[in-house]
Amino acid sequence: MTSAAMVQSADVELSRRAARVVPGGMYGHQAVRNMSAAYPQFFAAGEGALITDVDGNEYVDLMCSWGPIVLGHRDPVVNQAVRAQMDRGDCLAGPGPVLVELAETLVDAIADADWILFGKNGTDATTACLTIARAATSRSVILVARGVYHGAAPWCTPVPVGTLPSDRAAMRYFDYNDIADFDRAVTAAGDDLAGVMLTPFRHVEGEDQELVDVEFARHVRRRCDELDALLIVDDVRCGFRLAHGGSWEPLGVRTDLSAWSKAIANGYPLAAVTGCEAVRESASEVFLTGSFWMNSTPMAAALATIRRLDEIDGVALMRAAGARLRAGITTQAADHGLTIAYTGPDVMPYLTFAGDADRRRMTCFAEAALASGVYLHPKHNWFMSCAMEDAVIDKALRGTDAAFAAVRKHFGAN
Amino acid sequence: MTSAAMVQSADVELSRRAARVVPGGMYGHQAVRNMSAAYPQFFAAGEGALITDVDGNEYVDLMCSWGPIVLGHRDPVVNQAVRAQMDRGDCLAGPGPVLVELAETLVDAIADADWILFGKNGTDATTACLTIARAATSRSVILVARGVYHGAAPWCTPVPVGTLPSDRAAMRYFDYNDIADFDRAVTAAGDDLAGVMLTPFRHVEGEDQELVDVEFARHVRRRCDELDALLIVDDVRCGFRLAHGGSWEPLGVRTDLSAWSKAIANGYPLAAVTGCEAVRESASEVFLTGSFWMNSTPMAAALATIRRLDEIDGVALMRAAGARLRAGITTQAADHGLTIAYTGPDVMPYLTFAGDADRRRMTCFAEAALASGVYLHPKHNWFMSCAMEDAVIDKALRGTDAAFAAVRKHFGAN
Repeated sequence: MTSAAMVQSADVELSRRAARVVPGGMYGHQAVRNMSAAYPQFFAAGEGALITDVDGNEYVDLMCSWGPIVLGHRDPVVNQAVRAQMDRGDCLAGPGPVLVELAETLVDAIADADWILFGKNGTDATTACLTIARAATSRSVILVARGVYHGAAPWCTPVPVGTLPSDRAAMRYFDYNDIADFDRAVTAAGDDLAGVMLTPFRHVEGEDQELVDVEFARHVRRRCDELDALLIVDDVRCGFRLAHGGSWEPLGVRTDLSAWSKAIANGYPLAAVTGCEAVRESASEVFLTGSFWMNSTPMAAALATIRRLDEIDGVALMRAAGARLRAGITTQAADHGLTIAYTGPDVMPYLTFAGDADRRRMTCFAEAALASGVYLHPKHNWFMSCAMEDAVIDKALRGTDAAFAAVRKHFGAN
Repeated sequence: MTSAAMVQSADVELSRRAARVVPGGMYGHQAVRNMSAAYPQFFAAGEGALITDVDGNEYVDLMCSWGPIVLGHRDPVVNQAVRAQMDRGDCLAGPGPVLVELAETLVDAIADADWILFGKNGTDATTACLTIARAATSRSVILVARGVYHGAAPWCTPVPVGTLPSDRAAMRYFDYNDIADFDRAVTAAGDDLAGVMLTPFRHVEGEDQELVDVEFARHVRRRCDELDALLIVDDVRCGFRLAHGGSWEPLGVRTDLSAWSKAIANGYPLAAVTGCEAVRESASEVFLTGSFWMNSTPMAAALATIRRLDEIDGVALMRAAGARLRAGITTQAADHGLTIAYTGPDVMPYLTFAGDADRRRMTCFAEAALASGVYLHPKHNWFMSCAMEDAVIDKALRGTDAAFAAVRKHFGAN
């Protein structure tokens, strides 16, 4: 064996060990089998906008851990709040005062929120919204847009292995932004429509992203009002990034229930449901609980995160970073003679290549970006954080420029 | 206004504020409306076996936060591991090396575990067990014991408000420890039996606890083998407290899937599913994920917790504390001329009074114990931790003695 062959990367070694004790080697949305074999599976550290894998390779992190990291990794203000809370207590016989402070802060920050409940997973929050809507209306049917992700529970998982048709018995589907198809679904629900759940915009893995049509959003609101059904916005992925309050507040479209998680606590495990006065009583009658739902440290992290985002105008910072990235990437693509679509809001963009149905160009791009120190996803939207100063974006752009060069070299112009 | 009337407790003030922003004032299993109005809702701190409410009242904590606290509050070894992990990174682009270390440690510690997956809530774990069992067998029906708690998802919540009959369409029920009733349910499931989910013993709110009949457990195992159905143990509440490995290991009854949470990380948010080789591939095909499921700090907490429990023989310490509490309480009851049932394993006991169908004696006992500095639950089983040294148990017993005196005084002998 040559000495070169003896060099085993730490990632390869950890993956070998994981394959013995974890089904399929890894599970969930961060399993590299969902990305490309070139991606590292294990990470050692993060700081600001940078992450470091277990072999010491550093990357500009354009994924922000798939959304949770909004201020930057290991944000000192957030982590100081967590340490201070740990010095008092975390998982006790009831919530701490921080629950009340956080609840007041969020109900104040989110225009449509009259009350709030906390859980751990985004799926806890979306599932609770369904249950509360059914309790409030004494009806069953929930409408959701086809193909849109609302979590990994049996009623919504994108991979139905092990689930039953009965898990989705009262789910009905329509095409996002399609008023006629939505109306068809509403009619089909008859007098059993409990609610409509929508993401703030359409983000579906591997597809160009689609902003919400304001007329569509207003139409959904109007129909819900007419039918006494509830409008639920799944703000798990977009919340605290698209807008400081609810993602549809800038549209002026009121929501009855909203689900939150991801960015709410800069990476600490927390989710929330907010709702309007009319469904408060029903929300109090549904049994929602978990062993760690009252833990104070993630709430302390959330309180620090929300206050900090407000203080530094985090949404504006992320928009500026996103605009700089968009400008750079679209210019680079043109310079390399490549036709791309760069879709979605600047703070949560996604890139596709024209004529790339088999995604070979995009995989090449992502792998070349990775090799150039930029961590992005070939199929899933990316995320901006407040830690992405100009120099960080410029560093990312040096990587994407090399990645476009690789695509051009291997596939030519498109 | 007199100065006495101006004295507002911090708990009253926080509860008043919470009532404005939280439906019903508080939610979930720690809402004091499930206990008694005498109980404080908010807690400021915990250390070892003691907790302190927001008004500075200190209690011996016989609830251990409903199970998670197994080494004691703010265990220094666990919290040091958490702080060290926070200094590297927590929520990154993939898991850290600690996932592999923890997975290996648990697969090694749990005899029936050939693999492991991590989530956040106990309900994540029990739900995943159902989904994996259905994927592995291509069948639908899951049998569970009537009235037994398996989580708060629509398929298992004890409060069906807002859920649909279709959420439980493939659930079938039998009486715990009743072989004839179990066989009836098996026959009714026909050729569609995917699995049987059982808690290690029967713990139902407000009822005397019932240990598992070993013959019943063996019978379930045998029938599952005959029918190629999976035996699932919901070890969320009992795991790492009844035994260091699986709770049924001492019985010699093998399980195919097990759900874990609560004590696994001494209060940090973590859950797990373990399983046998035969269902590994199915487990890899089910989509199980959450935004914070790969976070490293709760895994660092779990690794420290499991190692520490092993090192100090935590189960033996908790059994000794539980035996001391049982001996003291049963003696006290007799001394006060009161007839009680003190049921369940020593490490997770529960107390009822004879002739107390309306639970007025038990509520009086719990409130008097609280006033004497002992925090226990009038309807839910209690928990021992490794921090309960003899002096702690003796302090608790001084409180329970006063509580028995109060019951005797108000209700007489029973």
